[in-house]
Amino acid sequence: MLQALRTQKPLVHCITNFVAMNIAANVLLAAGASPAMVHAEEEAGEFAAISGALTINIGTLSSDWMRGMRAATVAANEAGRPWVLDPVAHYATGFRREAVQELLALRPTIIRGNASEIIALAGGVSQGQGVDSRDPVEQAEASARLLARTRKTVVAVTGVVDFVTNGERACRIEGGSSWMPDVTALGCSLTCLVGAFAAVNPDVPFDAAVAALAMFAVAGEQAEANADGPGSFAWRFLDSLAAIDGNSLSKNARILPL
Amino acid sequence: MLQALRTQKPLVHCITNFVAMNIAANVLLAAGASPAMVHAEEEAGEFAAISGALTINIGTLSSDWMRGMRAATVAANEAGRPWVLDPVAHYATGFRREAVQELLALRPTIIRGNASEIIALAGGVSQGQGVDSRDPVEQAEASARLLARTRKTVVAVTGVVDFVTNGERACRIEGGSSWMPDVTALGCSLTCLVGAFAAVNPDVPFDAAVAALAMFAVAGEQAEANADGPGSFAWRFLDSLAAIDGNSLSKNARILPL
Amino acid sequence: MLQALRTQKPLVHCITNFVAMNIAANVLLAAGASPAMVHAEEEAGEFAAISGALTINIGTLSSDWMRGMRAATVAANEAGRPWVLDPVAHYATGFRREAVQELLALRPTIIRGNASEIIALAGGVSQGQGVDSRDPVEQAEASARLLARTRKTVVAVTGVVDFVTNGERACRIEGGSSWMPDVTALGCSLTCLVGAFAAVNPDVPFDAAVAALAMFAVAGEQAEANADGPGSFAWRFLDSLAAIDGNSLSKNARILPL
Repeated sequence: MLQALRTQKPLVHCITNFVAMNIAANVLLAAGASPAMVHAEEEAGEFAAISGALTINIGTLSSDWMRGMRAATVAANEAGRPWVLDPVAHYATGFRREAVQELLALRPTIIRGNASEIIALAGGVSQGQGVDSRDPVEQAEASARLLARTRKTVVAVTGVVDFVTNGERACRIEGGSSWMPDVTALGCSLTCLVGAFAAVNPDVPFDAAVAALAMFAVAGEQAEANADGPGSFAWRFLDSLAAIDGNSLSKNARILPL
Repeated sequence: MLQALRTQKPLVHCITNFVAMNIAANVLLAAGASPAMVHAEEEAGEFAAISGALTINIGTLSSDWMRGMRAATVAANEAGRPWVLDPVAHYATGFRREAVQELLALRPTIIRGNASEIIALAGGVSQGQGVDSRDPVEQAEASARLLARTRKTVVAVTGVVDFVTNGERACRIEGGSSWMPDVTALGCSLTCLVGAFAAVNPDVPFDAAVAALAMFAVAGEQAEANADGPGSFAWRFLDSLAAIDGNSLSKNARILPL
Repeated sequence: MLQALRTQKPLVHCITNFVAMNIAANVLLAAGASPAMVHAEEEAGEFAAISGALTINIGTLSSDWMRGMRAATVAANEAGRPWVLDPVAHYATGFRREAVQELLALRPTIIRGNASEIIALAGGVSQGQGVDSRDPVEQAEASARLLARTRKTVVAVTGVVDFVTNGERACRIEGGSSWMPDVTALGCSLTCLVGAFAAVNPDVPFDAAVAALAMFAVAGEQAEANADGPGSFAWRFLDSLAAIDGNSLSKNARILPL
């Protein structure tokens, strides 16, 4: 899949938050994809239809942007393009709770969130504070399975050890770095990378999500080796993403089927 | 205070400008806080009420965002949460001058600005150009004292040597680096960090402002030691922020009471 | 021109996209200019009139921002200030195609784009995908000359070897680095730097564009020498921009008149 991504350089349409825009675009470029940030209602639908995949992130939501997300998502569905939902802190306010329910009803191909977000999305009680998870991934696994089955989607929960399920199959992915939560918007960027892998493998979104998470985990582990803090980790992480190829990803990924 | 910040990891609600969003979030994470950027009128008030502190920055202002700032500020006041105002280039246009007067009337707990901004805010004649100060901090000290007394607030003026006053007490803070003005939005990020310290010390905002400025000054000095320019300074600065603990902050801070 | 830029530190009013805002501001600061991002219709015109130059980039366009761009551009023209247009992916949607035609009619002093953008702007058939060019610069040279003559403007096409023309004079600029397309928004940042040089040399925009492109090419080449990937390239590039002076720019620039 990574070789396909590098060869095809798929156009990934990202409607993400203001904090994530720059780092997410750099993550996609380092991985080999072609990112485009297009949010206006006037063009988001038209743009989604010419893209390989769409990613939606509600981090810095507003009513204007919600209109663009709606237009893009509907168009992606009509064009048969995969789309990924990142329900940032959806439990925090009424505005967010409503938005995420509407987006869920538009049938995301994949949902990527932290443990608190996934637990709350499945109807459980989470300990999340603002945009940060305060629940371990293991506690979100049952919620993720439930959400995947009821919504007929793939759910990826990221944290110390990641978890991916389509309701039937499931696996854990080890790796990454303890610096990752201290670099803002890496989770949001991962959502965009999941979109890039879905663009080159639209028929098996479970595999696409696993591949993207594995690539992040391997790059995180490699970047940590020489990092002295979150600042030096961030640029080393981009260097590692760019340096990974199909062989090193296969060799270093620690994917544990359940 | 820094130990409290690291232990409590306070949720800091930031409504800041598009240039600052990413670096401000990274600064807060490196220092130990939990940043969240939430600006929409539909949820800014609700979010401010669940946060430890609020910071407002008018750098890339628009009428939409002004509505969110108003909602958040009113809610922070009602919930008894401290809030920090960063009046970026408020003297530059009529739109900004009106906005800052309205925000001032909502009684910020702390104001953080450069010398030109503080002089103009106190009614003086500044030499500011765009977002850059062209006045030395020393020339803003009288303006800062006046502003603090008339508005019953804490005023922090940052530059080569910083100055903080609540109208009665005052001190200068030395340190930092000559690279800091060449990294965009570090001042805006400092405003957010002031909010983080205010969240863990809401009753003594003067001390909170001093602590945040001292942490920035120490991290700046340490980052400069190995930097070759503004690019390498920026990531070293984040590494330094993350590495500072209560002891090294106390040992290295140069706070001069007046 | 670079010495004038460092001495005058011109105020450059940038209305650019959300992805580019931070890196563009850092590029301008490293080069010696004073960037300001001001987009709201309520103040964009007033701000353009007090700035040395204006730059307009449609990367993350919306109707609201289009109103600010219109106000700023009209005011820049009335005040006799140079302004630079960056027509990001203008061929991708109807919304963008309309916006760019309206902006073209407002007579930009300089247009900076990639080959696909310039070919499409001159009425040709481009291979562009999203925001990425898929045409070599050489294939855009005739389009650039045509566009410069018919629109009475300077056109700068950037890629492996850059090309600048005012319809009569033309030159190529060699240098740069193969990492540059893998760092997001460097092209957008270059547009802002073109604005900075135009601010200190408003009467000869051809020379201003050539100088900005040459400075980017030299800094790119120097940054590549020690970079291991796009992450380390990005901060080294800022260090290089800040370290270049008039002498080293003259010595290392490879400008080939045609």
